[in-house]
Amino acid sequence: MASIRGRDDLLLGIGDDCAQVQVPTGQSLVFSMDTLVEGRHFPYDADPVDIGYRAVATCVSDLAAMGAKPAFFTLALTLPHSDPQWLAGLAQGMAELAEPIGLILVGGDTTKGPLTISLQVHGYVEHDQTPCRANAQVGDDIYVTGCLGDAAAAVAIVTGQTQVSSERFDYFYERFWRPSPRLIAGMALKRVVNAMMDISDGLAQDIQHILTASKVGANLDASRIPISYELRQWQPEQALNLALTGGDDYELCFTAEPSQAAEIALITQTLGLPCIKVGEVTTSGFTIQGYDGDVSGWQHF
Amino acid sequence: MASIRGRDDLLLGIGDDCAQVQVPTGQSLVFSMDTLVEGRHFPYDADPVDIGYRAVATCVSDLAAMGAKPAFFTLALTLPHSDPQWLAGLAQGMAELAEPIGLILVGGDTTKGPLTISLQVHGYVEHDQTPCRANAQVGDDIYVTGCLGDAAAAVAIVTGQTQVSSERFDYFYERFWRPSPRLIAGMALKRVVNAMMDISDGLAQDIQHILTASKVGANLDASRIPISYELRQWQPEQALNLALTGGDDYELCFTAEPSQAAEIALITQTLGLPCIKVGEVTTSGFTIQGYDGDVSGWQHF
Repeated sequence: MASIRGRDDLLLGIGDDCAQVQVPTGQSLVFSMDTLVEGRHFPYDADPVDIGYRAVATCVSDLAAMGAKPAFFTLALTLPHSDPQWLAGLAQGMAELAEPIGLILVGGDTTKGPLTISLQVHGYVEHDQTPCRANAQVGDDIYVTGCLGDAAAAVAIVTGQTQVSSERFDYFYERFWRPSPRLIAGMALKRVVNAMMDISDGLAQDIQHILTASKVGANLDASRIPISYELRQWQPEQALNLALTGGDDYELCFTAEPSQAAEIALITQTLGLPCIKVGEVTTSGFTIQGYDGDVSGWQHF
Repeated sequence: MASIRGRDDLLLGIGDDCAQVQVPTGQSLVFSMDTLVEGRHFPYDADPVDIGYRAVATCVSDLAAMGAKPAFFTLALTLPHSDPQWLAGLAQGMAELAEPIGLILVGGDTTKGPLTISLQVHGYVEHDQTPCRANAQVGDDIYVTGCLGDAAAAVAIVTGQTQVSSERFDYFYERFWRPSPRLIAGMALKRVVNAMMDISDGLAQDIQHILTASKVGANLDASRIPISYELRQWQPEQALNLALTGGDDYELCFTAEPSQAAEIALITQTLGLPCIKVGEVTTSGFTIQGYDGDVSGWQHF
């Protein structure tokens, strides 16, 4: 990719058997690997620029959940055939997200086969400032950033199953293909949260990972789940269900002591990022007041 | 996987959005990503234990080429369907290679789709002791460890295209599925070599990566290419061609100053690892004396 810039921490980049990195003193390395499969995570005929952007965005969202600063990524690309134009589009989309956040490609592999994209993103965080999932405390407030459900609603538009007005198309197309990983929010919030994660498979399913890891319960209030004006207008009946189980929005969910409420409001308002309390951590169980639907989200199998 | 053990450098393992690692002081991190695709890199009906072992071995071979000490790996697994028995086999094969060398699984992703296995292995090496490809010097001797060509010859046996005696089957089956990454040799040799890499796509093609990166040439002697007794017996006509272009043996190729010959002999003899000088680094060009065949190896597309 032409867009790659040098970094002081990079001793060897692409071209050797391994890349080599000198992790800055006092920092630890965090990393996450994600795979996108054609026909499963994106349509067969999707724009490679969109695919590239979204692939990096969804993976970077895991760094945001750890409050980490992005550093470098690797790319394992399986392609049915060599197509320089498609590859240039993919690289452009990746660079559109990666460049502004200082994330550079340092290695990977290219193989022939069904179109599959695996990325590993790497970032840095102070050793003792990582908001893990196992640290939610009984009595914590539960927060969600942004709006939920738009990306799931967009699938029918992105796959061409639904015809909508061009304005609605633009809004939802963008919401599916161009998620905004909450990196700055994650870095700013890590000092005041107890547990944090990103929402990729639907809030109702994802939050249970925090509850299981922390051995606690939760009570959510359906009326507080943040849903965009656009989604309420378009699909008033389905909006809440999509927001709770749809996934793909890549917003943050976190828990924090009630005493941190003012600090959280200050951080998120400074960033212009909507952030709302949607429930509390309890001793056990999981309930959503005002919602009696299914709470399972995206099923991987 | 049941076989995972803790490590002091691991602050967070599987279960959060990211794994978290504290790289030991004075060490840098090296890493490499490799993908294996069913039907391309291994047969459709292969034993999952073999697939797991070989997947880790081929990726770890990149650590060997950097003289690095293995630390942890991530796994992106795309599977057509959930099959606990197959997965248990894969995990067993991975553990058989990974456990004895202290390599542990710390994260990854599982998705539904055509069977594809992407691994990223990570290791540690001193900042200034990494033998990269760009450092070969005119006048260097060129060495190869082990024997070449066995794995390529084995493909016909592994895929069932050729029927052979059970003894021959066992030898070549093992040579394809159970490569031995030259980790100890790589760590011991890194102080005395100038450039080093592993041979994955065939010596004749792979060595040209060193020549290009170092802006030098090379002259190899076909009569010195190390070929096993078994391969010479089975395929006397094809043996040299397989050794030069077949790949998949995961041996090391390195260059070193002639003054290092005694030290290299001492290291490799101590390890009981065959290691032979096969040529010299020249100012330009690439020739193989005594061989007039094609020098292109494994083609990725």
